[in-house]
Amino acid sequence: MTSCTICNLIEGEIIWSDDKLRVVLIDDKGYRGYCRVECIHHIKEMTDLDEALQLRIMRCVFKVEEALRKIFHPEKINLASLGNKTPHIHWHVIPRFKEDSHFPNSHWGKKLREGLHQPISTEEKKDLIKLLNQSLS
Amino acid sequence: MTSCTICNLIEGEIIWSDDKLRVVLIDDKGYRGYCRVECIHHIKEMTDLDEALQLRIMRCVFKVEEALRKIFHPEKINLASLGNKTPHIHWHVIPRFKEDSHFPNSHWGKKLREGLHQPISTEEKKDLIKLLNQSLS
Repeated sequence: MTSCTICNLIEGEIIWSDDKLRVVLIDDKGYRGYCRVECIHHIKEMTDLDEALQLRIMRCVFKVEEALRKIFHPEKINLASLGNKTPHIHWHVIPRFKEDSHFPNSHWGKKLREGLHQPISTEEKKDLIKLLNQSLS
Repeated sequence: MTSCTICNLIEGEIIWSDDKLRVVLIDDKGYRGYCRVECIHHIKEMTDLDEALQLRIMRCVFKVEEALRKIFHPEKINLASLGNKTPHIHWHVIPRFKEDSHFPNSHWGKKLREGLHQPISTEEKKDLIKLLNQSLS
């Protein structure tokens, strides 16, 4: 069995998927709406994929960004594919707010305040899933 | 005059550009080959752009990734569009090495060691520009 935390889906809830990709809602109370777009297969770098799949992943990332902006109206959206600890393609799509724990620092940077603790509501989650199904089907 | 540091091109050297985009080599001695793909116009979010331009930007980001992998053989490539402090689309394309100052943390996270100080060589820079001109023309 692999030790990869993305392969083993250790964190979050799948809210959309197809044969290559899935959108996972991360249960991060300080970062309401934080999603990850994950490659289902264990691939390390975007340039290990062919161009069609690269662009399909990015289209999915942008549809998630669009949905999160519509629902949460964040100050900024942060997008990142790092994977230094978990080298399996996964894109962080993070709605950022002036009052969150790190803003304007990166989510991985120095914490500046206690931050927000507003878990996603049932209604917001329903809206997010609906928007993704509309835009990604 | 705008105060935006990307509009004013405060940092780095343009190594490729067209009418919408430019690739800037950041002069970061601890992160050899660190590039940014910058939107020339002052636009905040990727989803403020039409799909064609979104994909054109990402194609450019991936061509930079490809060139950096060929030249530097990094342990991992980090890609990020944050912009909390400078809300003007710019993609960080960072070759990461096990010995760099923050690995496996994010470049914005906790520094773990003194890190590498190997500025890009004249030959490497020439190769990078050549590869970008080949793949992006």
